[in-house]
Amino acid sequence: MIYELYYWPGIQGRGEYVRLALEEAGAEYVDIALRPDGVAEMQAFLEGPDVERPPYAPPFLKAGKQLIGQTPNILLFLGGRLGLAPRDAAGRLWTHQLQLTLADFIDEIHDVHHPLGPTLYYEDQKPESKRRAGEFLASRVPKYLDYFERVLERNRAGRGWLVGGKPTYADLSLAQVVAGLEYAFPRSTPQALAGRPRIAALRARAFARPRIRRYLASKRRLPFNNDDLFRRYPELPE
Amino acid sequence: MIYELYYWPGIQGRGEYVRLALEEAGAEYVDIALRPDGVAEMQAFLEGPDVERPPYAPPFLKAGKQLIGQTPNILLFLGGRLGLAPRDAAGRLWTHQLQLTLADFIDEIHDVHHPLGPTLYYEDQKPESKRRAGEFLASRVPKYLDYFERVLERNRAGRGWLVGGKPTYADLSLAQVVAGLEYAFPRSTPQALAGRPRIAALRARAFARPRIRRYLASKRRLPFNNDDLFRRYPELPE
Repeated sequence: MIYELYYWPGIQGRGEYVRLALEEAGAEYVDIALRPDGVAEMQAFLEGPDVERPPYAPPFLKAGKQLIGQTPNILLFLGGRLGLAPRDAAGRLWTHQLQLTLADFIDEIHDVHHPLGPTLYYEDQKPESKRRAGEFLASRVPKYLDYFERVLERNRAGRGWLVGGKPTYADLSLAQVVAGLEYAFPRSTPQALAGRPRIAALRARAFARPRIRRYLASKRRLPFNNDDLFRRYPELPE
Repeated sequence: MIYELYYWPGIQGRGEYVRLALEEAGAEYVDIALRPDGVAEMQAFLEGPDVERPPYAPPFLKAGKQLIGQTPNILLFLGGRLGLAPRDAAGRLWTHQLQLTLADFIDEIHDVHHPLGPTLYYEDQKPESKRRAGEFLASRVPKYLDYFERVLERNRAGRGWLVGGKPTYADLSLAQVVAGLEYAFPRSTPQALAGRPRIAALRARAFARPRIRRYLASKRRLPFNNDDLFRRYPELPE
């Protein structure tokens, strides 16, 4: 099976969580964003009148005839097939639950630069963004990181992964969130990680996996940038 | 199996999507929020030092020894057991995908009264809330409703439900979202529904199901209120 990933070109965005899973597993996939007509191919599925089960938004995955939207749902689907989730049903639900909690965290990260919603530009909501960023760094980042540190601490397998003794897609996603926070908040994030050694170690370990390291060093890995989910603005707290 | 639902007392909130599924199926469950010590019982799972797989936040479900958090994840788990999701894997993923899209919509509905984040009171973000509400009603409500209207239109079974020919938990959730919007925005919502007859019909049909009607008329169904997800404020657009 050759998977097709549909997403916007030029950004990591939510597509990156899917890319990391596919790369870690060495799966064959086509990243449609890299094709010259990629956006048109994507729009055909989003807006075409004959798509029986249209996704609401990218990213979405095409697996044979099946279209699968919503990042955590794509990872739920891929997790079992790619060996990036436990085999038992309870373990799969738990991994998915962690991914959904990461998705909430990612939404809040996005909303730092879009507190008034996705319909206005950042430039139209700068003062509000500044206020939200302060609250986010003071209260929300600690709450989410403490949670994942606790999950790591309580995982009895004790191998430093979130679920059981092997890496899952949720580990890759958490590592990506931490890397994004480091880009967006270069002063606060190392301070926050200093008190959460398990998350810091997970991030290092996940990004040192041979296939992930090769991917991160390749041209396929786009640099962080300010059209993306994680953004660094000089007027916001660092 | 007697399920236990853990959630805050006094509000419908995200717990209501789970309640509607349990009620429609006639499942046996204990709503822990109704117990005098419900909050303490809930906190014991959220904060207890011995919980191996702690939920990040309520609602969460206890099914035997298994704890399941994140509303769409709970419904994914219950859907198959309660006959509120298709039997085939692709149909289950698609139903879950719709639920995740509803979850995004619900997040945006919440953020109308909390644009600067969940750490501040509404009273501390009134002007921002007013601006966000305007954008929300002008752009976001139409986008989400058009999407679900399209999904209903394209469902070949043609029985007026989102997936196949039978109601799923996603139908119940969509009906609840529409009811919530009617409470929060009593002038805009009927106007928006006038142009989306399939959603209006689904909401009426879902809430007319015998068990759902009995539930809605019971004391178990809490009234909408302004500590909840859907809020009506006189200073916001109607």
